[in-house]
Amino acid sequence: MRDAGPEEAIFSQRIIGIMRERFEIFGFSPLETPIVERWEVLSAKYAGGEDILKEAFRLKDQGDRDLGLRYDLTVPLARYVACNPNIKMPFKRYAIGRVYRDGPIKLGRYREFMQCDCDIIGADTAAADAQCVQLALSVFDALNMKVKVVINNVALLKLMLQKVGIPEDKLTDIMLSLDKLKKIGKEGVQKELKDKGLNPDAIENIIEVSGSEDRIQAIKSKYGDSPELERVSKVLELAKDARVEFDPSLSRGLSYYTGMVFEAFLVDSEITSSVAGGGRYDRMIGGFIGRPDDYPAVGISFGLAPIMDASEKEARRTVTDIFIIPIKTPVESNALVQELRSEGIRADTDLLERSISKNLDYANVQGMSFVVLLGENELKEGKYKLKDMGSGDEKLLTKTELIDFLKER
Amino acid sequence: MRDAGPEEAIFSQRIIGIMRERFEIFGFSPLETPIVERWEVLSAKYAGGEDILKEAFRLKDQGDRDLGLRYDLTVPLARYVACNPNIKMPFKRYAIGRVYRDGPIKLGRYREFMQCDCDIIGADTAAADAQCVQLALSVFDALNMKVKVVINNVALLKLMLQKVGIPEDKLTDIMLSLDKLKKIGKEGVQKELKDKGLNPDAIENIIEVSGSEDRIQAIKSKYGDSPELERVSKVLELAKDARVEFDPSLSRGLSYYTGMVFEAFLVDSEITSSVAGGGRYDRMIGGFIGRPDDYPAVGISFGLAPIMDASEKEARRTVTDIFIIPIKTPVESNALVQELRSEGIRADTDLLERSISKNLDYANVQGMSFVVLLGENELKEGKYKLKDMGSGDEKLLTKTELIDFLKER
Repeated sequence: MRDAGPEEAIFSQRIIGIMRERFEIFGFSPLETPIVERWEVLSAKYAGGEDILKEAFRLKDQGDRDLGLRYDLTVPLARYVACNPNIKMPFKRYAIGRVYRDGPIKLGRYREFMQCDCDIIGADTAAADAQCVQLALSVFDALNMKVKVVINNVALLKLMLQKVGIPEDKLTDIMLSLDKLKKIGKEGVQKELKDKGLNPDAIENIIEVSGSEDRIQAIKSKYGDSPELERVSKVLELAKDARVEFDPSLSRGLSYYTGMVFEAFLVDSEITSSVAGGGRYDRMIGGFIGRPDDYPAVGISFGLAPIMDASEKEARRTVTDIFIIPIKTPVESNALVQELRSEGIRADTDLLERSISKNLDYANVQGMSFVVLLGENELKEGKYKLKDMGSGDEKLLTKTELIDFLKER
Repeated sequence: MRDAGPEEAIFSQRIIGIMRERFEIFGFSPLETPIVERWEVLSAKYAGGEDILKEAFRLKDQGDRDLGLRYDLTVPLARYVACNPNIKMPFKRYAIGRVYRDGPIKLGRYREFMQCDCDIIGADTAAADAQCVQLALSVFDALNMKVKVVINNVALLKLMLQKVGIPEDKLTDIMLSLDKLKKIGKEGVQKELKDKGLNPDAIENIIEVSGSEDRIQAIKSKYGDSPELERVSKVLELAKDARVEFDPSLSRGLSYYTGMVFEAFLVDSEITSSVAGGGRYDRMIGGFIGRPDDYPAVGISFGLAPIMDASEKEARRTVTDIFIIPIKTPVESNALVQELRSEGIRADTDLLERSISKNLDYANVQGMSFVVLLGENELKEGKYKLKDMGSGDEKLLTKTELIDFLKER
């Protein structure tokens, strides 16, 4: 686990702020759940599964209760829905919070990390699926990042695999391998299937329809029409955006997906892993209370870490925009700062009675945008010399002009 | 520990947003530290002390390392400063985050709760003290809450207690009792001192000067002038606000305070406990690295729970402002919602193909402000009937007028 110093925290706060705004514009409301959950919730049958549970931090309270740190935001959501039967459906919630995995650390993977999830509970419709896709496009628009969103229906994929003769109990295994198509290529997937003792040619047909120009048509003629294929068409129609691409080989690996799945990738970027992903998991939430058919759900999760990696960094160690440097005017400088603050401007001044050059150095190292040197002359004439710390430009402004200029930025 | 459902989370997010904005306007930058800390940090000599450590959650990772959940945001700040010797001083940081205490739960006290802290490290000046006071006033102004801020200098209080003959080793004990003056009155404090085996009259003089009109003058004439008293005068002068009140009996109980202390109380409110508090703790941060003289520090902490209790609740279960109810127009309704969203309006529509009355009921129960019923007629004529769910008022608007109206709100 690691600290996010001001430089990183300012940056991540900005991105989280943009996401939060978009989530709310799309009608998702915040839900906050504790970081510590009862172990029986984290280890429930419909929860994250064995592999994830192995990486869960476990602890006890003074009452000897078995507890653990949440490893995702979906299990607490399921518990919340299960415990609050009066929630009106559809229930649209977002959560932006820290989760914990006690696994081996790698570059860019930490034991404490942020998840940013939006989910719609209680709506088993193409409109709900499409909304997740539209949300993703809107978030990345707001972040000024070019993406494509790949979608598929895992129920359709299962149907196709069954039609080429894959038995029910091998489906998940095949889909796990197929999920690596982008990463390891057709030969890689075939080798992996062979190693697993499965027929490597089983996926030939899937890859073939994935490569065709009109994939909907290719599937229709090869496998016939189906409600599963119709769902894909409907989501494409509702989302109505050229950046949305149907790829019948996408499976997202996780066994709890039951319908549409989506994954967002950056376009023209060195980052090839997905920056957001999600899908429909109709049986998990209800499964928690023994009613797996009652809570259809679809959601999308945004990866803060890859989004931060792909965004342009700002080298600011402080939020402060303007620093007033007193030249023997501590009281007047403090008063000016207070006036700027009351106008909503992020302003600060010397707290240590330091020299002008030390204060200039401080403002510079911290990455502040502007300084004003405030001496007797400035006060007498009512003119303030504003220095742009980036360009070095200076301009002489009245107080009103100074406030207007800073507010406009 | 408990969930904050949408109703509460929307409300707390709004308050946190206001605080964050004020913190940044005052030049405090965010610092984020992990919730899990090494046990040796949490239990260090200069950390929270034995009582608090008894309530700390403890756990181990797979590498058998001793860990714990943070019980405040100050210890992680101290560790961060100690580990990052290149930080420029003064270092002004805020942190808004969850902390954990495995103690007995009471009404309004939970095992997981939020702390909202601002601290200034590396500035042992009245200007830094005054800034914390000014920040408090500004935050409560922004929250639209009437407060007074009581200030004192615990070094001055100690000086006065010593002058009336209290021995050094009894000072903390006396101050702990004196801290309850508001709650249990003069007699209560005297009884408590007696029970502790201390002279109940020892505080008579302190209470006397606290009651006088000009307290600075009363102390000056009774105890003489001192740098400690001058510091109080200077902070009062810098903060320059009639809501700031000097009370020589305020001690805030905690043994780590070394100078100015502050506490904010609501005026004309049923809530009598403080809504913010803090002070100067010059020896703690440096103490972590064996250099207790090198890191003067002053800070203020805002109580999210009492602030929420004292604020007017909004009964909204959703962030959504406007709900478009389709009358056989699902595609057009979706398109209108997307258009509103692209204008930054928090809009939503039916995802379940429900009837008009069910959709109206949903919008009503969720607390949405407006609905538009969108049928063929509305589309043909380009006029939308906007219904105010609060007042029941309806108005007929063009799409442009609708957008302008919603954006203006």
